[in-house]
Amino acid sequence: MTLARALFAPRAVALIGASGDAAKNSARPLRFLRKHGYAGRIVPVNATRGEVLGERAWRSLAEAPGEIDHAFIMTPGDSVERALEECGARGVPVATIFSDGFADAGAEGAARQARLIARARALGVRVLGPNSMGVIDIPGRLALTVNAVLEADGLPAGTTSMVSQSGTMLGTVLSRGAARGLGFSKLVSVGNEADLGVAELVELLAADAATQVILLFLETVRDGRALAAAVRKAHAAGKPVAAYKLGRSGLGAALARSHTGALAGEDAALDAYFRDCGMVRVDQLETLVEIAPLLAGRKPPDLARAARVAVVTTTGGGAACVVDRLGMSGIGTFAPDSGSPIVDLTMKATAEQYTAELDRLLAAPDCDGVLAVVGSSAQFHPQLAVEPIVRSRKSAKPLAAFLTPHAEASLALLAAGGVPAFRTPESCADALAAYFAWRSPRTAPAGKADWPAGLPKKGRLDEAQALELFASLGVPVVEHAIARAPGWSHAIAYPVAAKVLSAELLHKTETGAVRLNIADRAAFDREVQTMLGRITAKAILVQRMETALAEAIVGYRDDALVGPLVLVGAGGTLAEIYRDFALALAPVDEDEALAMIGKVKGLAVLRGYRNLPRGDVGALARAVAAVSRLALLPGRPVAEAEINPLIVKGDGAVAVDALVAMKE
Amino acid sequence: MTLARALFAPRAVALIGASGDAAKNSARPLRFLRKHGYAGRIVPVNATRGEVLGERAWRSLAEAPGEIDHAFIMTPGDSVERALEECGARGVPVATIFSDGFADAGAEGAARQARLIARARALGVRVLGPNSMGVIDIPGRLALTVNAVLEADGLPAGTTSMVSQSGTMLGTVLSRGAARGLGFSKLVSVGNEADLGVAELVELLAADAATQVILLFLETVRDGRALAAAVRKAHAAGKPVAAYKLGRSGLGAALARSHTGALAGEDAALDAYFRDCGMVRVDQLETLVEIAPLLAGRKPPDLARAARVAVVTTTGGGAACVVDRLGMSGIGTFAPDSGSPIVDLTMKATAEQYTAELDRLLAAPDCDGVLAVVGSSAQFHPQLAVEPIVRSRKSAKPLAAFLTPHAEASLALLAAGGVPAFRTPESCADALAAYFAWRSPRTAPAGKADWPAGLPKKGRLDEAQALELFASLGVPVVEHAIARAPGWSHAIAYPVAAKVLSAELLHKTETGAVRLNIADRAAFDREVQTMLGRITAKAILVQRMETALAEAIVGYRDDALVGPLVLVGAGGTLAEIYRDFALALAPVDEDEALAMIGKVKGLAVLRGYRNLPRGDVGALARAVAAVSRLALLPGRPVAEAEINPLIVKGDGAVAVDALVAMKE
Repeated sequence: MTLARALFAPRAVALIGASGDAAKNSARPLRFLRKHGYAGRIVPVNATRGEVLGERAWRSLAEAPGEIDHAFIMTPGDSVERALEECGARGVPVATIFSDGFADAGAEGAARQARLIARARALGVRVLGPNSMGVIDIPGRLALTVNAVLEADGLPAGTTSMVSQSGTMLGTVLSRGAARGLGFSKLVSVGNEADLGVAELVELLAADAATQVILLFLETVRDGRALAAAVRKAHAAGKPVAAYKLGRSGLGAALARSHTGALAGEDAALDAYFRDCGMVRVDQLETLVEIAPLLAGRKPPDLARAARVAVVTTTGGGAACVVDRLGMSGIGTFAPDSGSPIVDLTMKATAEQYTAELDRLLAAPDCDGVLAVVGSSAQFHPQLAVEPIVRSRKSAKPLAAFLTPHAEASLALLAAGGVPAFRTPESCADALAAYFAWRSPRTAPAGKADWPAGLPKKGRLDEAQALELFASLGVPVVEHAIARAPGWSHAIAYPVAAKVLSAELLHKTETGAVRLNIADRAAFDREVQTMLGRITAKAILVQRMETALAEAIVGYRDDALVGPLVLVGAGGTLAEIYRDFALALAPVDEDEALAMIGKVKGLAVLRGYRNLPRGDVGALARAVAAVSRLALLPGRPVAEAEINPLIVKGDGAVAVDALVAMKE
Repeated sequence: MTLARALFAPRAVALIGASGDAAKNSARPLRFLRKHGYAGRIVPVNATRGEVLGERAWRSLAEAPGEIDHAFIMTPGDSVERALEECGARGVPVATIFSDGFADAGAEGAARQARLIARARALGVRVLGPNSMGVIDIPGRLALTVNAVLEADGLPAGTTSMVSQSGTMLGTVLSRGAARGLGFSKLVSVGNEADLGVAELVELLAADAATQVILLFLETVRDGRALAAAVRKAHAAGKPVAAYKLGRSGLGAALARSHTGALAGEDAALDAYFRDCGMVRVDQLETLVEIAPLLAGRKPPDLARAARVAVVTTTGGGAACVVDRLGMSGIGTFAPDSGSPIVDLTMKATAEQYTAELDRLLAAPDCDGVLAVVGSSAQFHPQLAVEPIVRSRKSAKPLAAFLTPHAEASLALLAAGGVPAFRTPESCADALAAYFAWRSPRTAPAGKADWPAGLPKKGRLDEAQALELFASLGVPVVEHAIARAPGWSHAIAYPVAAKVLSAELLHKTETGAVRLNIADRAAFDREVQTMLGRITAKAILVQRMETALAEAIVGYRDDALVGPLVLVGAGGTLAEIYRDFALALAPVDEDEALAMIGKVKGLAVLRGYRNLPRGDVGALARAVAAVSRLALLPGRPVAEAEINPLIVKGDGAVAVDALVAMKE
């Protein structure tokens, strides 16, 4: 019995703690399994009753006959541990635990969960949960869940599967899809992910013949490396993975943390992570419901330029709502052979004309996709536009539809025809933007880097050491020397900058430990004395003064969730205030670094903004790539590093200020 | 017969060009009027038939008997003009023109429209359109429209009215509302607004006893002053006005322009304008459908601090979707007497507990509103949460609901109970953000300003004149003098800046017409000679060099759509790239200027960002208020003006560079 079969296609399920009161949550799995036609054996376990909702029940799992493939544990408190022991004793391969009070309930609960999972490992029982709402397989008729959405009749089967860190949101997506004919295959609520996590489930779904598209509802990412590997496997299997991720605002991130006990990551880092492993990220919740037909059977478009969508509409205002929104994502719209951004057929097209127009647009060169906006005919006259859309020639280019009125029958027609169709202009534009931003999983540049002999591997490097490390990776660094007491001599040509050399001293500028533009030796001696009057130091870092066309910040962080990241931004306080930077998973090559630089608005000054002199963008890109090679150091000892500023000149770039902090 | 009665409650309507073919658009008004139970007299006019869809028809309006209150003109081409003449001859007070080919069809069409409207004025006929889809009054059973949404049966009546620049979007909003029990009163498609425009219709609806909330779907603003006045009247009558406005991206703006022939305004200016006159602006289309119950009977909250919403939920994930989004709008959420941002009752509350919790939250101090998020119970067990919400004690504080599953019956229950309810987390957060950002119409500060004697009122002022104008309004300007050939003498203490004085010379810095930091007389003479080597000039503006804690830009523009605007932003290229500025309608007082400054991220450096020295924010605010008084000059002669930079110091602020351009 494979894990996938035990999870999704068990021949027998035990319902531990099944209630005889049909109104209770713990009666739901039995009711739902029956209602949706589960073909296997149901084994209710109830400590006090011999019968549950008309089904023979057992006092304990030990007493129940036959082989059990999957146990669903609903009992409160310590009885969970007892139930797990019984699963182990009976050789049950998988237990889904609905009971809560584990990592979802503070430090004590987390410790209890750790003990439970250690015991499960020893017993050889895989665990979904705790705090999981269960597992659903619509075509397989398995409704092993407490999720009330299963009260619905006739949920449509499909080839979209979903893994959710929120059990209730499974029901949301399922119920909204069902209302408009969008069917699902397997749906899993992972709860606390104590054992089986999102990553392993994505891997199972990547190998699942009944799954074409995988949707994720994420509150956090618990095992970044494993999830990235699983998403890459799904890509290799031709199965797109799309995610809705909470935590875009600080408030949402705090809530995700407090709600699930999980650590929430910085949103921009997660964006870089999703892009890197080839995941599609949606912004609006309903896009998650609607996007599957846009992705099914498609590969990432990997566009190297801004996307262009041809638009045909029977409502000028309705089309404008989407076009306006697409423009905010940098997506252009056009009508072939016309200067207009749309083909407006309001109140004038027959079905034949509409079909001809669709064919023309799908065949238009430089067209990356077609958007059909349908007005009131979608509600009352589907033959005019909706049916031609369903019948249109299938093309590698996506054809998406936005229906402006309330038109569920037409949405269902489009769903049945496999046409991506959207209820709101916002989710339509969101889906198209997410699709066109979709990239194949990235192959990080190969290579290795060596730790310079003699540099400490703990704590914080002093600035001379930090410059040495960056230079060893290929970053051009400012000409510098160390002046020492008592003579403070050095060989750097004036004007120079002088900084107290100390790994401990942070915020050097604010504490007066930095002096710039020192014109000559006499001034240098004065400045050194002034600094030493405030700060005890044995060494001073002397640097040649450099003049900048522009200043950049280049950073590196080995993120606990997503791994090593490289950052580039414009230098200075304003850029910091605007949080104007680009992030990518490290290492990156020079081309990738150039693409990052292109996303930083403030670095427009380097690209010849308003006749300002152009800076050496290539040198900046090489420096970013060099910094990103911190990720290639054996054992990845660096926790955080930053060059701020990296001075960009008309010819070349040079690091003048550097920080490096080790993990230990 | 008042205009309102002729438009919305005509005793007899003439349908000019009514088709006898039921499938044609021009047959719709007759079909719809009958279907929805119009109680007045229907007078079809058809040049070739004596009968239309079983109704007696006349060859021309002249032949038709009785008084006609409202004519609906659908005939093509030149016959529109003939029909209008007939309306004039018969004393028809209002003609709605569905026919297109006017301002919607290029310059020739615009000229034709101008002639048509001139004739209508002469005849005393008010015109709705051309290119209007008509007028609907649901409680009044008037369906004088070609909009296919009227094919629907039993559209619910309500107290929300709507004016739309897109005829098809009327149908969108009406059909989506109807599907969930949100009723409407009057709906008007204004088409090209050649005569009756959005402003006049808002004014009519403000006076309409059957209207409580006014919705606008806008592609542009055609008469900013009239619309602002109308929205203020609606406010005075206790009727909130909410608008969805296209054109947030350049693409959408271009489309709005090409689609309607209207001039699209800059989005940020329109934002300032909407806020100023007390309008609520929504971002998502569905918010326009859903927001009315949140606004009905309420006044602008006029909050002086960030809003705080108490949240109760039966789905942690569903609540997090809204909370995350609210956080992006700066709205905080909280659970009273708890450190958590939400009250999570997932799978544990009875209806009684839920009711008690709602009462507790609505009564909580420092709570500006309550958000109830309901999970699957909204679909299957409305008695658990939805019904307690409907029964909850009505409070001045808004109580809004977001339902996560597909739950139309519950949405209708909430609509019937007057509870604002939302289908998506995005529209829910959008509506709450729009509500909390809602301000009462602003009373602009009174006062007058005089034009300094001797300054020209045409073209462009030279910089000395510009500084004089700003000084006359109360802006502190840099100490300056004019040095003239041949001696170029001046009395400004060194170091100084020198600029060629010329109204024609733009981009002085780029063309070498500005020299900074001139240390002494000898250097000054050298710099003057260098400048004169390139540029012919008779006068040089000499200014004392000022050192800045921060630089700001203060601008003014008399906008064609919305009137005089004042702008404040951070100085420098980066701030320009980030478009980091605040806009308001001019004039503003010092407090309003302070609030504007608070919205400019880049001016955080003045507020003591990261231990940087604080700047004189008050002096900056006084300067912004002074610049805004350009709007008080008699005749408002100034088209555009700018101080860039305004140097902000620890004590005081001073304008060092000024531009002023007149309207003529």
